[in-house]
Amino acid sequence: MSEITQEHFDYAANALHSLPFAKLIGMRLVGLKLDEAQISVDMRDDLRQPSGVLHGGVTATLIDTAMAFAVRTRLPKEEATATIDLTVHYLRPHLTGTFICTAKNVRAGKRIFTVSAEVHNEEGKLIATGLSTYTRV
Amino acid sequence: MSEITQEHFDYAANALHSLPFAKLIGMRLVGLKLDEAQISVDMRDDLRQPSGVLHGGVTATLIDTAMAFAVRTRLPKEEATATIDLTVHYLRPHLTGTFICTAKNVRAGKRIFTVSAEVHNEEGKLIATGLSTYTRV
Amino acid sequence: MSEITQEHFDYAANALHSLPFAKLIGMRLVGLKLDEAQISVDMRDDLRQPSGVLHGGVTATLIDTAMAFAVRTRLPKEEATATIDLTVHYLRPHLTGTFICTAKNVRAGKRIFTVSAEVHNEEGKLIATGLSTYTRV
Amino acid sequence: MSEITQEHFDYAANALHSLPFAKLIGMRLVGLKLDEAQISVDMRDDLRQPSGVLHGGVTATLIDTAMAFAVRTRLPKEEATATIDLTVHYLRPHLTGTFICTAKNVRAGKRIFTVSAEVHNEEGKLIATGLSTYTRV
Repeated sequence: MSEITQEHFDYAANALHSLPFAKLIGMRLVGLKLDEAQISVDMRDDLRQPSGVLHGGVTATLIDTAMAFAVRTRLPKEEATATIDLTVHYLRPHLTGTFICTAKNVRAGKRIFTVSAEVHNEEGKLIATGLSTYTRV
Repeated sequence: MSEITQEHFDYAANALHSLPFAKLIGMRLVGLKLDEAQISVDMRDDLRQPSGVLHGGVTATLIDTAMAFAVRTRLPKEEATATIDLTVHYLRPHLTGTFICTAKNVRAGKRIFTVSAEVHNEEGKLIATGLSTYTRV
Repeated sequence: MSEITQEHFDYAANALHSLPFAKLIGMRLVGLKLDEAQISVDMRDDLRQPSGVLHGGVTATLIDTAMAFAVRTRLPKEEATATIDLTVHYLRPHLTGTFICTAKNVRAGKRIFTVSAEVHNEEGKLIATGLSTYTRV
Repeated sequence: MSEITQEHFDYAANALHSLPFAKLIGMRLVGLKLDEAQISVDMRDDLRQPSGVLHGGVTATLIDTAMAFAVRTRLPKEEATATIDLTVHYLRPHLTGTFICTAKNVRAGKRIFTVSAEVHNEEGKLIATGLSTYTRV
């Protein structure tokens, strides 16, 4: 796959927006090109920890999901991927506003993909960063 | 804190069970002792990926949450913790039945905690393992 | 491979002890069984950081090496492996005495291996722990 | 510290070049500015694995060392740092020529630093990438 068409974007957006756990969190596909995917989430109260900040599990889920979409830009539609491992570093607590994850393939091999991700807030500040290994299944 | 009383367990269970994102996933505190916490989740359809297996974001959220409860067994009730980083390795796809995360403090420092976690299915098979750094805030 | 014979141990020990970078550090294979390898290093001055403690790069190298030997207990002698990724958590500074790494296959797949490791000092205290993904090449 | 002077560079270079384990590997400080350090290594035979490629422990040591120098650009000279954890992803085997690590502070807190690193070969190809948490001690 060498370019992302509107049809491909619509297919991916539909896949994300019909996924129950993505709906639960409120993920929206906002960008897709070869080796890169962007997904955003609007902050709301039930994504908070007791202390009031964004739950780290939401951040990890967002990163894992955006990474999977970046990997799939290299694969035929019907192929599945699996996360082998995921490392997330949390940099700043998030309180209000939309946050957006940009995931990029650092290296796309035949079977193994290394993917990085950054999550920014509306002011463009980095709130989390991640590094992951994926495989085709 | 040198022992976990029933009152402490009830306090922690209530904290978990009233947390919206934990309710969304369906987490239940099932064990708590000094340096260790156990949380279980019953598999259900809206925790699946398109391919039908458990979403890796749920696993990461479960691990992050159980780890935070393990860390807090070393801290006064009112103190908060923050995840500095989290690494999850996914070992087996999960399809049906309850899965349970056991998180343990590998090292409890004055400010910095290193925590490990394992997630098992009902047959006792390991489905994911994690390693993380926490801090008091 | 279902059991580690003396011949297999000697082959592995020889492979380690003739590897220049392992010699530079002073690694010795001290244990090998199916899915597990143990390598020890004697502390000496040129493994120290300026502050006097063991250099974290030595610990990471030791872990990576012991993990590779654990993985290879599942593979024919002539096959090579590659580290896909490695996460090390440093728990205690190390100053004197032998330290030993025990690496275990957490999951041995057809191509992908998840491996954990612990490094202990002579008193049995944990000084570092690691988690890694390997592949056959 | 808001700028790196020649004196500061010389101090750091001397610290690196007089460190036995750095000398063993052949590390050279080639760049230093606020929040960033660059260290290079010339490939040679005793840094290889049995298969002939660069040993992953060398890469991890190089990354850990460059990261420590990036962190120290934010600290008074006499202060020490400690690696809390380190994740390295290996992307390409390295066979010949100089390789160089660029480490950057992603976030510099009062006590906790998040640092990323990339290792490139002479053609500018990425051979490894890392993410790490450091602390002042």
